[in-house]
Amino acid sequence: MLRGLLVGRFQPFHLGHLSAVEHALGMVDLLWLVIGSAQKSHEPKNPFTAGERLEMIKRALDARGIDPRRWHAVPVYDADVHYLWVAQVNMLVPRYDIVLTNDPFTGMLFREHGREVREVPLLNRGELSGTEVRRRIAMDGEWRILVPEQVAAVIDAVDGARRVKMLHAMHDGHGGRYAHRHDG
Amino acid sequence: MLRGLLVGRFQPFHLGHLSAVEHALGMVDLLWLVIGSAQKSHEPKNPFTAGERLEMIKRALDARGIDPRRWHAVPVYDADVHYLWVAQVNMLVPRYDIVLTNDPFTGMLFREHGREVREVPLLNRGELSGTEVRRRIAMDGEWRILVPEQVAAVIDAVDGARRVKMLHAMHDGHGGRYAHRHDG
Amino acid sequence: MLRGLLVGRFQPFHLGHLSAVEHALGMVDLLWLVIGSAQKSHEPKNPFTAGERLEMIKRALDARGIDPRRWHAVPVYDADVHYLWVAQVNMLVPRYDIVLTNDPFTGMLFREHGREVREVPLLNRGELSGTEVRRRIAMDGEWRILVPEQVAAVIDAVDGARRVKMLHAMHDGHGGRYAHRHDG
Amino acid sequence: MLRGLLVGRFQPFHLGHLSAVEHALGMVDLLWLVIGSAQKSHEPKNPFTAGERLEMIKRALDARGIDPRRWHAVPVYDADVHYLWVAQVNMLVPRYDIVLTNDPFTGMLFREHGREVREVPLLNRGELSGTEVRRRIAMDGEWRILVPEQVAAVIDAVDGARRVKMLHAMHDGHGGRYAHRHDG
Amino acid sequence: MLRGLLVGRFQPFHLGHLSAVEHALGMVDLLWLVIGSAQKSHEPKNPFTAGERLEMIKRALDARGIDPRRWHAVPVYDADVHYLWVAQVNMLVPRYDIVLTNDPFTGMLFREHGREVREVPLLNRGELSGTEVRRRIAMDGEWRILVPEQVAAVIDAVDGARRVKMLHAMHDGHGGRYAHRHDG
Amino acid sequence: MLRGLLVGRFQPFHLGHLSAVEHALGMVDLLWLVIGSAQKSHEPKNPFTAGERLEMIKRALDARGIDPRRWHAVPVYDADVHYLWVAQVNMLVPRYDIVLTNDPFTGMLFREHGREVREVPLLNRGELSGTEVRRRIAMDGEWRILVPEQVAAVIDAVDGARRVKMLHAMHDGHGGRYAHRHDG
Repeated sequence: MLRGLLVGRFQPFHLGHLSAVEHALGMVDLLWLVIGSAQKSHEPKNPFTAGERLEMIKRALDARGIDPRRWHAVPVYDADVHYLWVAQVNMLVPRYDIVLTNDPFTGMLFREHGREVREVPLLNRGELSGTEVRRRIAMDGEWRILVPEQVAAVIDAVDGARRVKMLHAMHDGHGGRYAHRHDG
Repeated sequence: MLRGLLVGRFQPFHLGHLSAVEHALGMVDLLWLVIGSAQKSHEPKNPFTAGERLEMIKRALDARGIDPRRWHAVPVYDADVHYLWVAQVNMLVPRYDIVLTNDPFTGMLFREHGREVREVPLLNRGELSGTEVRRRIAMDGEWRILVPEQVAAVIDAVDGARRVKMLHAMHDGHGGRYAHRHDG
Repeated sequence: MLRGLLVGRFQPFHLGHLSAVEHALGMVDLLWLVIGSAQKSHEPKNPFTAGERLEMIKRALDARGIDPRRWHAVPVYDADVHYLWVAQVNMLVPRYDIVLTNDPFTGMLFREHGREVREVPLLNRGELSGTEVRRRIAMDGEWRILVPEQVAAVIDAVDGARRVKMLHAMHDGHGGRYAHRHDG
Repeated sequence: MLRGLLVGRFQPFHLGHLSAVEHALGMVDLLWLVIGSAQKSHEPKNPFTAGERLEMIKRALDARGIDPRRWHAVPVYDADVHYLWVAQVNMLVPRYDIVLTNDPFTGMLFREHGREVREVPLLNRGELSGTEVRRRIAMDGEWRILVPEQVAAVIDAVDGARRVKMLHAMHDGHGGRYAHRHDG
Repeated sequence: MLRGLLVGRFQPFHLGHLSAVEHALGMVDLLWLVIGSAQKSHEPKNPFTAGERLEMIKRALDARGIDPRRWHAVPVYDADVHYLWVAQVNMLVPRYDIVLTNDPFTGMLFREHGREVREVPLLNRGELSGTEVRRRIAMDGEWRILVPEQVAAVIDAVDGARRVKMLHAMHDGHGGRYAHRHDG
Repeated sequence: MLRGLLVGRFQPFHLGHLSAVEHALGMVDLLWLVIGSAQKSHEPKNPFTAGERLEMIKRALDARGIDPRRWHAVPVYDADVHYLWVAQVNMLVPRYDIVLTNDPFTGMLFREHGREVREVPLLNRGELSGTEVRRRIAMDGEWRILVPEQVAAVIDAVDGARRVKMLHAMHDGHGGRYAHRHDG
């Protein structure tokens, strides 16, 4: 039995993620989905909590008819110390054989810990990115066509579009970084 | 749809836990299993990593034929600050309606945050406790009859009995506390 | 103007603390009250949050008619690293000239950082200790006579006696240490 | 009795803050001042320690003749995890009924936790901002007219103008972020 | 070139440690000394800071005429998460081939990470332990004969005997655990 | 005996650092080298682990024939709280008399804690900076002439040039900040 690890932030879980999961399930028997940056939410690039993201993933994969015995999602915090991040994953996730990622940094970290890393083909990366989905939500654009309908339902249920818009509005658009400020 | 939350450390996942999960699934439609103290392992009372515990749970519930769309397990660290623990659970776990626990402290924390808490009947608490399972492993006793066979398989796969014995041997038996020491 | 620092956990703020504050205000012009272990609550020895303790102190001192310009309370977390605790106090508290404490460990830490430390006479230490107040609350004993009535009012308002009893009941009485457990 | 919460970083406490406090005291009976980002100091945008800021606030409000029984300031660290910040405030601050803030992010966080949030009218926001005060200090401009004289006295006492200038000089002016570096 | 790792807390560095280092230097070409629990000090079992312990080690080994190019000491904090401790060592210490330790827990952790572990013969473990040295210091016993004279000089220079006695006095002798308390 | 403290990140240790160490050893008898930001690695500005940096320093200084009894390197984490950083250094490093640094921020922090700070002459700062060395490695430029040959050997041994190139490639060149992302 081959077990794979797929890492993402899923902010939010979109059709590109769904395609990657389906592709990965063609490569491995069992797939651990790492919900990265699990401690982050309420930031322009990370609007949703790990729990909200887990609900999106679960509802989308269940609706798609994917065998739920073949995957499980695990939220993982960023490590303050990059070097310790892979060890933290190994602690929180059951045994796995290969890592599926297209992020060169993630790949490098796992390779330095002796793990085999493979790429996953990406669908239409231009439109199908978390950045584009969040941008469209903020701009009242056509975001619903980029995500599974169950994801849209979760976003609606938590009033997520309003949150994304507010976070986007507070963020200056010139490459600056949003900071948690209380400058009353 | 009623969603429940069941909290445990699952060190290891035993037949009492299995019975509690089945009972809980008779009460709610969807069950979030919180794997508590997720950061702990390699301690006498917490020998197994969160990943090992997740593997135990998943294999046992899948083998039992429980519908995998009706539950999902989420590892949650202890909070340094007790008061923040429930907020941390709320961040990491999707929406839930009731909390199922027999631990009065866990129940108190959730009640102070306005959550409804219900008890779960426990099977034969004397034998079916993590403490008893770990004690039997350490003593080469009859521990396999207390856990689902898939759990025993995971323990065997990670050479867990040896780990439990070593941790137990290092622990003085007089109520003292084990400390990570390097007194070379 | 002489400024003093008085350190306590105030679990809860009792008549001995009140007497110490009044004595200290006879020694200094301005008194900073450090509410220590501010991150702790919901433990047998630390049942109350820092906010609850601040409310106790403020209501008791205001009711006593003590000039509120002469004191201010500041919650301070324990430092993971003992050595850094005094530096953390110095960051969170305005300038001070002397430290008032009867705890030899607290005194040693401040002295090693070059601070002058003086003792404060304690009133009837046998009865007037946080330990005794908590014990009486847990046992339905005469605890109200040991605290200012405003403190009793705060405890009542947060249903604190029930919390203390529950924490006490979960705690084994043989010198063991209470641990946050979720052993469902 | 209506209790309000007013959040700020107070870097430093200026006349706009003073006006906001006075306005707030017209709305509520008791006001908790949260000194946010309490762990920060010695940064261009956060030059002063929480203790220095508390001393500024206390001296300014006492000199203004504001009844000291009607307010209390509490330093609160940033939470590594945004989602937990409100829970941390609730732990460190006594009970409150409404939140007074003009920062939309702070308002959003409290609203998501079910709190009532109201705005506070701001005086002449162009000049009366922490940013402008720090800029003037760094540029040897007319900063003293923007702060209560007691605040200027605290800044002088800790040689704060020199600190602000040094921090400003080290900060590149092109949108970059200051980093704690030791590139000897 | 064979590189070894020797782990200890060195509270304080005694003649048994010196003997172990000399023995280890007969086994390897280069020896990394890990000063464990580096964040701890001012506790009964951990009275000395990492800096004080490093000074003890350096002065003792230099005085002994041991080639200083053949060893280097590195302070390492305890990890909050046991599982991550070895990864943290690997980050802070240069490359090494074998681990020298007699502590079964330390050995287990390194073995689980695929490291070769060897034992180091211990000299007269009854007398030559940190526990015994600290006990004799606390009791005004003959502790100086158990440590290199340079270690005694460091202890004298930091008034360490007084610190050890005070910490010992505050510690209840019944197996309880010392806690940082401020119960003014 | 005069003891000095020299702070650097040493990313990597280059000829300018070597020159500074030699200059410093002309000023003091004993030199503690603080390897700053010890928890950082695998970032564009901090590619090497503390262990790798320690190995670079040790091999370069040993090859240079510098008396190894006259210096020792100590890795020190950044403090989350700037104000506590000097206290942390004081805990991890043995006693020292003066601080040698050219970084005005580092100097300011030590001066505020009452330490004497002196500057160290820098050799050809334009070329001999960590930034320039990393830039040349990333661009396949002439980086080897800027570092001691032992440092180049360590970089080669850990395949460091490839790591620096990958980190550089992931970093957008417009003043943005690299972030640990897993946007699979």
